Amino acid sequence: MSHPEVQVLDLQVVPSKGSCFIGGNISENSGGPKAVKYGVVKDYVLNLEIVLPTGEIIWTGSNVLKNATGYNLTQLIVGSEGTLGIVTKIVLRLIPHPKFDLLMLAPFNSVEKASEAVSAIFRAGITPSAMELMEIESIKLASKLCESTAIPITEGLEAHLIIEVDGNDLDVLMKDMEAIAEVLANFEVGELYFADDAQQKNELWKIRRKASEASVAAGYTIEEDTVVPRAELPRLIKGVRALALDNGFKVVSYGHAGDGNLHIRINHPKYKKSYENEEIQTILTKIFELVKSLGGTISGEHGIGLIQKSFMPVVFDPISMELMKGIKKVFDPNHILNAGKIFDLKK
Amino acid sequence: MSHPEVQVLDLQVVPSKGSCFIGGNISENSGGPKAVKYGVVKDYVLNLEIVLPTGEIIWTGSNVLKNATGYNLTQLIVGSEGTLGIVTKIVLRLIPHPKFDLLMLAPFNSVEKASEAVSAIFRAGITPSAMELMEIESIKLASKLCESTAIPITEGLEAHLIIEVDGNDLDVLMKDMEAIAEVLANFEVGELYFADDAQQKNELWKIRRKASEASVAAGYTIEEDTVVPRAELPRLIKGVRALALDNGFKVVSYGHAGDGNLHIRINHPKYKKSYENEEIQTILTKIFELVKSLGGTISGEHGIGLIQKSFMPVVFDPISMELMKGIKKVFDPNHILNAGKIFDLKK
Repeated sequence: MSHPEVQVLDLQVVPSKGSCFIGGNISENSGGPKAVKYGVVKDYVLNLEIVLPTGEIIWTGSNVLKNATGYNLTQLIVGSEGTLGIVTKIVLRLIPHPKFDLLMLAPFNSVEKASEAVSAIFRAGITPSAMELMEIESIKLASKLCESTAIPITEGLEAHLIIEVDGNDLDVLMKDMEAIAEVLANFEVGELYFADDAQQKNELWKIRRKASEASVAAGYTIEEDTVVPRAELPRLIKGVRALALDNGFKVVSYGHAGDGNLHIRINHPKYKKSYENEEIQTILTKIFELVKSLGGTISGEHGIGLIQKSFMPVVFDPISMELMKGIKKVFDPNHILNAGKIFDLKK
Repeated sequence: MSHPEVQVLDLQVVPSKGSCFIGGNISENSGGPKAVKYGVVKDYVLNLEIVLPTGEIIWTGSNVLKNATGYNLTQLIVGSEGTLGIVTKIVLRLIPHPKFDLLMLAPFNSVEKASEAVSAIFRAGITPSAMELMEIESIKLASKLCESTAIPITEGLEAHLIIEVDGNDLDVLMKDMEAIAEVLANFEVGELYFADDAQQKNELWKIRRKASEASVAAGYTIEEDTVVPRAELPRLIKGVRALALDNGFKVVSYGHAGDGNLHIRINHPKYKKSYENEEIQTILTKIFELVKSLGGTISGEHGIGLIQKSFMPVVFDPISMELMKGIKKVFDPNHILNAGKIFDLKK
């Protein structure tokens, strides 16, 4: 998911696991399913060697866990999409890999109930290591592509939550899962399904990872990487469904519900690219205005690139945009690094 | 610890717990004992309302856990010491408070062995919630100030590690402590002491918190907030001791060893302030050059302010300094916000 500028093109048939690289991860401040517990790329980058447009090479910080020495150039480079400098060396913080994980599937006949359950789990004091939402249509499409029946599809089903906990003590994880099940019971959850072994877990994750490719193949070619406070997910889903009805397109959502990061995929009868014409741009602006009104923003992990830059003014006021352009000019006055990405800049 | 510019003045007799405010925490990107497990302030700030020098008000981001939308203005403001904008509203990420914690004191007859043990614990896959080092002199001074005998001081003792683990399952924490004890056994640790109840824990923490005030009162008036990769702590301590011998000053160190963040306090026979004359500046430059050579930097959590700014060129090359000054100009072209802090800037 490191190149948002190709996200609606047929090229994007490979899910990012196995195709993305650490340089792209840093440039996009990538996330993924485990971010809900472990944070995103920016939370692991301590120091970067970058090449400036002049050819000069600097380190942005030091190889330390805490740093209160001058402005945080490291965090400025992370997520800057290659527009400020070219990353050539990376110092990352490492943490121990957890020994165990447990995976649960939770079916819901109401996607709104599913999304309400998400924040309730965190309010109960539990932090899952993954908390993914898949709307039924995305499950059906991905299951078909994988030729898999790993996710049971029952009558009336609207969505599944895929919930993982991880850690070093299996008893604690079992207790966490019990506590999560108790919370879910308040949200009209169906029969919970626990993955028994690594193979079952892989099958479930495979379906989740194929959601993007499968949706594109089925005509859901326009993807938006919305993110809102997780407690606002129900309102986001409801709002997008209303927009779909009003504007005559089909929509399917899936993604990192625990972060409030929902990938919304649009199947429009006329337009297959987000930048194709004004009508589709107007629809997307409405979605982003909804996102903004809920305290969210237009990209949680995919970045802005070329095709999202026209929507930057929806979430940033002109003053903020000028500050960003000012920073760009400080690093790259001649506008030669990844020119035209994130925003347009006069030379 | 929110105002580095007063760190060597008598004013600083109050440890930061109870005296610092959230605005200062954000401006300095504060740390503290729990940062080793939970990160620093920057890891919790999602969005900031700031007032620019023009009087214009902007939000730096959105109220979301993941954000890949434009440059990270939020992280640029955190730690910028009030030089880019005035923070007026703050959106923080919250996490559940752990239910239990256990506290252990580990005495060492060699401060180098103590510092070697620090990184060994992390390499064993354990992440304590606090991992503090106190050299014997700081323990003696703080214990005297507190009129406390909570930390036993035995013949030949050079340092204590204060090690805390926290979480929601007491059995797991006991196992963590056992595993830590096993690691410590390889580093000539003395008899381990476990705090039995909240009162004992408070007494131990009180001594740690009084280290700064007690050191100042005893003539250790110059404090440096060094930070290195934690595996380099033994070399830092050894190097600083050698510098003290060569240059005729006394030194005592304590701090957040788990982060590699060591507060080095200097008792110089002639100079009581770091900026008093060239001789003391030369000594401090040598300390910072050592820190830099170990991959570290001059401030882990106190910031730069006025008195550390002359040392910025030790860790940043001129190009990086120019980039920072350029950013400052973008936000504050007339140099009216906290002028003179971090670096000097021509109008």
